[in-house]
Amino acid sequence: MPRIVRYYRFGDPEELVLEEAAPAAPGLGEVRLGVLAIGINNSEAQLRRGTYPLLDPEFPTRIGKEAHGIIEALGPGVDGFAVGERVSTIPMFDMARYGVYGEWAIVPAESLVRMPVGLGAVKSAAVWQAYLTAYGPFVAYSDPAPGSWALITAASSSVGFAALQTAKARGMKAIGTTRRRDKAAGLAAAGFDRVVVTGEEPLAATVMEATGGAGAAIVFDPISGPIVAELAEAAAPGATIFEYGALAAEPTPYPLVTCLKKGLGIRGFTLWEIVRDPGRLADGKRFVVERLESGVFDPVVDRVFGLDEIAAAHRYLEAARHSGKIVVKVRDE
Amino acid sequence: MPRIVRYYRFGDPEELVLEEAAPAAPGLGEVRLGVLAIGINNSEAQLRRGTYPLLDPEFPTRIGKEAHGIIEALGPGVDGFAVGERVSTIPMFDMARYGVYGEWAIVPAESLVRMPVGLGAVKSAAVWQAYLTAYGPFVAYSDPAPGSWALITAASSSVGFAALQTAKARGMKAIGTTRRRDKAAGLAAAGFDRVVVTGEEPLAATVMEATGGAGAAIVFDPISGPIVAELAEAAAPGATIFEYGALAAEPTPYPLVTCLKKGLGIRGFTLWEIVRDPGRLADGKRFVVERLESGVFDPVVDRVFGLDEIAAAHRYLEAARHSGKIVVKVRDE
Repeated sequence: MPRIVRYYRFGDPEELVLEEAAPAAPGLGEVRLGVLAIGINNSEAQLRRGTYPLLDPEFPTRIGKEAHGIIEALGPGVDGFAVGERVSTIPMFDMARYGVYGEWAIVPAESLVRMPVGLGAVKSAAVWQAYLTAYGPFVAYSDPAPGSWALITAASSSVGFAALQTAKARGMKAIGTTRRRDKAAGLAAAGFDRVVVTGEEPLAATVMEATGGAGAAIVFDPISGPIVAELAEAAAPGATIFEYGALAAEPTPYPLVTCLKKGLGIRGFTLWEIVRDPGRLADGKRFVVERLESGVFDPVVDRVFGLDEIAAAHRYLEAARHSGKIVVKVRDE
Repeated sequence: MPRIVRYYRFGDPEELVLEEAAPAAPGLGEVRLGVLAIGINNSEAQLRRGTYPLLDPEFPTRIGKEAHGIIEALGPGVDGFAVGERVSTIPMFDMARYGVYGEWAIVPAESLVRMPVGLGAVKSAAVWQAYLTAYGPFVAYSDPAPGSWALITAASSSVGFAALQTAKARGMKAIGTTRRRDKAAGLAAAGFDRVVVTGEEPLAATVMEATGGAGAAIVFDPISGPIVAELAEAAAPGATIFEYGALAAEPTPYPLVTCLKKGLGIRGFTLWEIVRDPGRLADGKRFVVERLESGVFDPVVDRVFGLDEIAAAHRYLEAARHSGKIVVKVRDE
């Protein structure tokens, strides 16, 4: 009997339990995947803890939204896919309803993308949350001048690396920030032109020095809170600061005088803006797949766990010592 | 002997004194204007009080930046203008150096614009600060959908009326806010589709009701401070809130969760962004002059003072009971 991950109440990683469950039949517009690998995201840890604001699951519930696998069954009304095809899911569905942690998952067919041959299951599970989150600010909503600078905070996250590669694909240079000195070398090796260890180096002054006084034309930040005032100081005139998360516990002051003097915009962004817009989503899928095929994009994976290590994978995620994506490999390809 | 306005120290309106002064000769790239009318701006009251952050005048000093007048003399290197032409100044110079309050003024030729025949001196002195400030957010930086809604706070200012006319010229509908019930009828008569008296009506709920739940696609606000959270609630998904001033004494919290959920941007803007960019300035001048000529734009003037009433004009400005521009008429045309 195949196994899936469920949990019965909010809490620590150990609430995630592996249980045997017979594969369900896909409904209208759905498919069943035989899961090969799962990308692990912060929002899943938030959901498990009960701190994710957008979902209110009924227990017991499934969890997870990024998977790569093989189509096992098609529900009614599904066109364009066939049993046996290998696909990844774009996280554009209610993960409490369509959780993908496990050996099988029911997912909406509209969320599926065929992946480049040869990318492998692990990397194929590490693409869509990260690259589409970078796609909005760096492609859909910006037209950066060649050689201009991106400032990417929390650079060691999977989204941070995807943003680095996307900024580079757009002809930009990139500065990454991390709180951890031990991550700096890895970030530089990944291609960041400059790494700022916040807490050790002054952020705005270092960015200004690295950019020859120009400042960052695009700032990409999931932290929010008081750091935003420093990001505004580090920004170029006319820049946009994209806030795509709310990691900070403190409120975020709007740096009005700096925004007035420099003509800065501070814009909230979530992946939902892309996935809910069919035109943008199609453009984003094409943009990312082309660059995966050419090797310009290459998902950075930190560590691979087994399915029976799912609680350990969440503990590792919450320790925040990783650089890149945490992936659970369910079975060999 | 002609008279000019000077002041010798920061302070109340009475510090502005009329003094006789022989007309100076224009320097390189400058002209001397025989001033017919002067537009009065809040930034001049701030400068007089000593609270304007960008200028640090040496006393005694002149003041003022918006004038309409007749060219009396050309300095070396001035092309394209002739003595006897009637022009207005775009406020793009240091007003402590080039103050225009008085019967004559030296101004940079690059700031001059020929105005439509028939607009008259008073209205011709009431154009550029207001209409170019509206031009950036409503034209240069936005492409509003026809029938979408603008939300214009402090709507009874000269910039508010210019923003109303600009929003309408862009095919938008407009909601104006005021703190004063006694201004509401005048705002409605000027063309606002809905007027919200803040303090009496809930801002976000009223905007949502007036827009059929759509919210405002462009928000144009000089107030800042805590009202920005309400403006975010009143904004449409994907909207931009343009902050073009800092009237509030309180800091401005960034409404992060609302900005994330709606994909909102909050962008600082000042007229300097337009006047320092020759391409944008040329486009903006053309956009405004064409609409003044066709009558689509019609500056709203609240009250006209004489030059010997300059202190009274500043007192009236600071009482904030006016709707539209305060103009000082220096002499008959």
